[in-house]
Amino acid sequence: MNLIENHKPIIGVMGGASVNRDAEKTACELGVLIAENGWILLNGGRNAGIMRASAKGAKSGGGLTIGILPGSSKSEANPFIDIPIVTNMADARNLINVLSSDVVVACPGSVGTVSEIALALKNLKPVILLNFDPGNIFAEYIREGILIKVETPAQCINKIKDILSGRDV
Amino acid sequence: MNLIENHKPIIGVMGGASVNRDAEKTACELGVLIAENGWILLNGGRNAGIMRASAKGAKSGGGLTIGILPGSSKSEANPFIDIPIVTNMADARNLINVLSSDVVVACPGSVGTVSEIALALKNLKPVILLNFDPGNIFAEYIREGILIKVETPAQCINKIKDILSGRDV
Amino acid sequence: MNLIENHKPIIGVMGGASVNRDAEKTACELGVLIAENGWILLNGGRNAGIMRASAKGAKSGGGLTIGILPGSSKSEANPFIDIPIVTNMADARNLINVLSSDVVVACPGSVGTVSEIALALKNLKPVILLNFDPGNIFAEYIREGILIKVETPAQCINKIKDILSGRDV
Amino acid sequence: MNLIENHKPIIGVMGGASVNRDAEKTACELGVLIAENGWILLNGGRNAGIMRASAKGAKSGGGLTIGILPGSSKSEANPFIDIPIVTNMADARNLINVLSSDVVVACPGSVGTVSEIALALKNLKPVILLNFDPGNIFAEYIREGILIKVETPAQCINKIKDILSGRDV
Repeated sequence: MNLIENHKPIIGVMGGASVNRDAEKTACELGVLIAENGWILLNGGRNAGIMRASAKGAKSGGGLTIGILPGSSKSEANPFIDIPIVTNMADARNLINVLSSDVVVACPGSVGTVSEIALALKNLKPVILLNFDPGNIFAEYIREGILIKVETPAQCINKIKDILSGRDV
Repeated sequence: MNLIENHKPIIGVMGGASVNRDAEKTACELGVLIAENGWILLNGGRNAGIMRASAKGAKSGGGLTIGILPGSSKSEANPFIDIPIVTNMADARNLINVLSSDVVVACPGSVGTVSEIALALKNLKPVILLNFDPGNIFAEYIREGILIKVETPAQCINKIKDILSGRDV
Repeated sequence: MNLIENHKPIIGVMGGASVNRDAEKTACELGVLIAENGWILLNGGRNAGIMRASAKGAKSGGGLTIGILPGSSKSEANPFIDIPIVTNMADARNLINVLSSDVVVACPGSVGTVSEIALALKNLKPVILLNFDPGNIFAEYIREGILIKVETPAQCINKIKDILSGRDV
Repeated sequence: MNLIENHKPIIGVMGGASVNRDAEKTACELGVLIAENGWILLNGGRNAGIMRASAKGAKSGGGLTIGILPGSSKSEANPFIDIPIVTNMADARNLINVLSSDVVVACPGSVGTVSEIALALKNLKPVILLNFDPGNIFAEYIREGILIKVETPAQCINKIKDILSGRDV
């Protein structure tokens, strides 16, 4: 991977707006670890689910957070977003989410999250599934090592380090 | 479904740029039938795979074809596209593909097609899977009847008629 | 200009949603003439101003009309649009308007229309100003002949013919 | 203006990719002052003209810089961009530039810059013209006070302060 030297890595955290407490707790822990590793967290920015939880974690870890918003106003952002990017392009912003991330982490979600995994893989962006199983539709990408399954935030962070160092991708 | 009376139905046909002969043959047959039913065919417009085959079928059936192109020029369109829409928005045009269709048909494809199924379902657009099995990731939508599996173009056309008449959705 | 042989020319008609009766009357006349010349009319599709008037003209002239809609539903289209393209990308659809047109006509309008003229010229798309004077900001493009001023629909049609035949661009 | 309390203001600096040395020098000075005021600088991110100069200034002033890129890779960003946002949406990213900015500053530029002024005004975003005269096309917005002309970076900063404090808009 050609990671540009002078940019801090941007880690995209995708996932549903309506998820259970456990998924939110895990996303929050992931956000903390992303911040503690000196990386920037990017997500969909809205005030719900994985978007809110992961940004909250990153801020509590002292990190910087970017939210790529689907609507027309930054008032849509959750309070843990430092930099709201306003697209007014609805779900077309999902493409921006994944293209702007050096690594994409997919937490539990629904069809929005699946669209982001698919768009990331189409653009050869590495994707880590954190407790999210999209079935066998992406099996070919798991074989190729561009789609990776993990079960804990700590495992996820290790995989991100591998990818960023170019050892594993 | 609130189909506006004075628009001809637009049937979106999604699917891969690299598929086998059988899938192309089926997409071509589907295109013929879409045209014979007086519907407009919409797809991603490029000169490959399901996009080319379905448009070829629709033209041989006397229909009208629209191609929503990802690049910057209409020279990207296959020769069976009547109306090339030039977006220069890359994969973000996948959202336009599904939002502009009254019914989406997903033929065999890869991650691009999966992104279109996911974006369609997120926007509550009915999707018919024609010999394409995305695994169990969308199982909830099959239960709700918004995602439907069929095996032949004729079955697909019957489902489209059901949806357009409001009987089944 | 490399106009692809097998596509009917698409003429984009831009202009304001709030304009006076004279501007609407002129846009309607232009729409009639576009249709009578066998060209397809494309505009922003909404049910107001130049968008409605030009589509109404094209339909009364027996033509085909395309509306590139900013919102999420084809119910936003005026009743004279045959093919509503639903983008849900707000003003970002202005780029699609001009890239999909072989020639852009700018009728009287406001900042939306100015953005379309600017985006068209940036992409080297010929623009005809029909009774719309954007001041001297685009003077360089008038000198280069890619931006052309006319005063009547008939003059506009003649310029479109020149451009499409490659004589003047 | 409803500026959200917990976001640092984002100042968008628009302008051409090919401008003269004076314009680049002014944009660089503006970038320094934006950073020194604690604001975030956002621009189109590419490695040319106003985009490069204003980001260079902001970095030398110790600030944070965001580049909204038109292409598919962050390698397109100039070396003074901290956070490259990759859209792959070509000129459609101009809308994101202005919607994500609390105040837009337009430096000398060409049709791309004009499209950004127009899109900003259409979305009621305050725009400051810094030594850039788009003629009388936007006169109505100058009268309304949403479009403001200044001649120096220092004057520009004062106007930004007025706008951010709500005193002048």
